[in-house]
Amino acid sequence: MDYYFSKTVTVSFDEAVGIITEALKKEGFGIITQINMQEKLKEKLGVDFKKYIILGACNPPFAYKALQAEDKIGTMLPCNVLVIEQGINQIEIAAVNPIASMMSISNPELSEVAIQVTEKLKKVIKSLP
Amino acid sequence: MDYYFSKTVTVSFDEAVGIITEALKKEGFGIITQINMQEKLKEKLGVDFKKYIILGACNPPFAYKALQAEDKIGTMLPCNVLVIEQGINQIEIAAVNPIASMMSISNPELSEVAIQVTEKLKKVIKSLP
Repeated sequence: MDYYFSKTVTVSFDEAVGIITEALKKEGFGIITQINMQEKLKEKLGVDFKKYIILGACNPPFAYKALQAEDKIGTMLPCNVLVIEQGINQIEIAAVNPIASMMSISNPELSEVAIQVTEKLKKVIKSLP
Repeated sequence: MDYYFSKTVTVSFDEAVGIITEALKKEGFGIITQINMQEKLKEKLGVDFKKYIILGACNPPFAYKALQAEDKIGTMLPCNVLVIEQGINQIEIAAVNPIASMMSISNPELSEVAIQVTEKLKKVIKSLP
């Protein structure tokens, strides 16, 4: 099973961040965390890494359902969406597949939520230009 | 397979956050994100939820190794550690089991990193008072 869904967009890195943020918003996901891995790795290890941002996307009604179904599901929240510079104006956008990341948890109520969120994230990635 | 490791500590909620932050630091993990789910759910849905914080813990050398082994592993970073108020001064601290969350990815190089990080997080939880 694929653990992520991705698409490469031909825009600048900053434009890609804007595009995915808007696309997520249309499906009810807000960005609640943002990690700039390039900056973090430079600061902590002094190494050069490509532009790589981890956006933490949260759809509050679904997050609430998931938490009610499975108390410790916060270990796998929010849903991460990556923005990665793979080349000049070649920006890969990749969303986690919650069904894959949650496959070690056997809870039918949670699985139902995971299936719905997965469908939404798939739709977001598919909608990218 | 357990998808998390947890221990309940008998301190106040804020003390628990301080204790786990220190314990993580000893194993090389910094907190790079923090989500207050109680506040977020109140703000977005108007519902009352228990005190529940998601700390995003990152050990930079291991994160870098993981990223070099598996480009899209950022979908599962950072390692989440939960602080949950289960009762008065009964605070559960739960760390994700990276081996479980990454089980859908078959990459031996990544698995090696996941095993080492899992051992570190187990150690952190075991060290709690």
